[in-house]
Amino acid sequence: MHPFDTATLLELQPDGRFRGHTHPAYANMVGPFGGTTAACLLQATMQHHAHIGEPVALTVNFAAGLADGEFLIEARALRTNRSTQHWALELTQGGEVAASATAVFALRRETWSTPEAAPPANLPAADTLTRAPLIGRPAWTQRFDMRFVRGGLPETFDEQNQPDSVTQVWVRDEPPRVLDFVALAALCDSFFPRIFVRRRKVAPIGTVTLTTYFHADAAMLRAQGARHVLGTARAMNFRNGYFDQTAEVWSDDWQLLASSHQLVYYRE
Amino acid sequence: MHPFDTATLLELQPDGRFRGHTHPAYANMVGPFGGTTAACLLQATMQHHAHIGEPVALTVNFAAGLADGEFLIEARALRTNRSTQHWALELTQGGEVAASATAVFALRRETWSTPEAAPPANLPAADTLTRAPLIGRPAWTQRFDMRFVRGGLPETFDEQNQPDSVTQVWVRDEPPRVLDFVALAALCDSFFPRIFVRRRKVAPIGTVTLTTYFHADAAMLRAQGARHVLGTARAMNFRNGYFDQTAEVWSDDWQLLASSHQLVYYRE
Repeated sequence: MHPFDTATLLELQPDGRFRGHTHPAYANMVGPFGGTTAACLLQATMQHHAHIGEPVALTVNFAAGLADGEFLIEARALRTNRSTQHWALELTQGGEVAASATAVFALRRETWSTPEAAPPANLPAADTLTRAPLIGRPAWTQRFDMRFVRGGLPETFDEQNQPDSVTQVWVRDEPPRVLDFVALAALCDSFFPRIFVRRRKVAPIGTVTLTTYFHADAAMLRAQGARHVLGTARAMNFRNGYFDQTAEVWSDDWQLLASSHQLVYYRE
Repeated sequence: MHPFDTATLLELQPDGRFRGHTHPAYANMVGPFGGTTAACLLQATMQHHAHIGEPVALTVNFAAGLADGEFLIEARALRTNRSTQHWALELTQGGEVAASATAVFALRRETWSTPEAAPPANLPAADTLTRAPLIGRPAWTQRFDMRFVRGGLPETFDEQNQPDSVTQVWVRDEPPRVLDFVALAALCDSFFPRIFVRRRKVAPIGTVTLTTYFHADAAMLRAQGARHVLGTARAMNFRNGYFDQTAEVWSDDWQLLASSHQLVYYRE
């Protein structure tokens, strides 16, 4: 069993909630990697007997640092329409809310469609780059194969401010795993904190809220398979304790699979 | 009293919920303008006796079209930390959820800060442009003074696809009103549907989820006063019934006040 599937394994409880458990393979500096938490919240909805269609949007609010160990997720369908369904979720530990989420699921129909954002151009292929070693980084970073084109984690945090925080990275699960919505939800949180890239300085940080829009359907994710996707991330603004991050995840044939936004607390 | 203040007036009920009422001045094609709904959800948190600090993030999920008339909002503080507070909100009509929301409030501290996104350059000043007439459009559009630099609502929907959906617009409340968080939450939803701009064709649409990050604090908004702010909006992708929109709101001295993202259902 892939460690990601173990980390996102949920067990339905008699009261309708789902029980999960943090996994040491996805440990962060303190507690678990937030991407896995986001993935578990989406997983609860995907596993809920009442869900319809596929996810189109997920917002996760990290209300408190998760402790290593068990957690419970309650998923409530707030409203089910003809083609959309709205969910509210709460993840608790010891009776206290550690994360909340909302999700929108939808039955898509074929319509006029067109891309607008341009994919990154003139990038070296993933197999021409080497995997970032990330020695001494938290365990979860080892669960991704990251090949940075630009804006990787600095080798030394020399506090030399950079002109921007832009990252371009080929990334896939490690070991390889066929992409699905739950894995994509986690991958959208796999970009290192923009302030590390911009300042080349480590600062205490924590994502407070993360929103992901799924542009792809399940078939597009299956077609991508276990190959690297291209992720881009950048901040727009750092101000008085909070910065934002906008990320894009592109298939290797340059379709936009997801766009993702987060707001991150920082201290220094 | 400014019509926006009437439209976002909430009355505390004995059970702790807030009662509001849609306002004809902010009517949309059917039901109220979604921006006012988002503003009411934020307003409920701002008015809640337990709130701390100022909003940094708001996600609103439009679960069903609101009917004209009364609604109730329940705001629950999920978790209060030293400097952040997480909220969950539900807006109901006739006992059914019409919208849900999550909000993050924070006590900001002064830290190292820097912008990263570049503001739009070489724009004509608001007072050199004329207000878009928007005759025959829903009532809410008259509650904004919009001066389009680029990407306005087409005068004729001639179904000539455009190369992009980018809009740049000077916008303020009409009549003028000093900017605050609640008004900014509404303004972030005032951009016309990207598909109208891109296709020059009217299609049935509805925002399903809207996330706004507030980069500004209250003092910055007060300093902006009632003058026009510069809004930009664009889509990244239109695919099988859903498109996204990313928007920025800049002060007239080029500070990023808010960034906002939404996912919109469309049919054709």
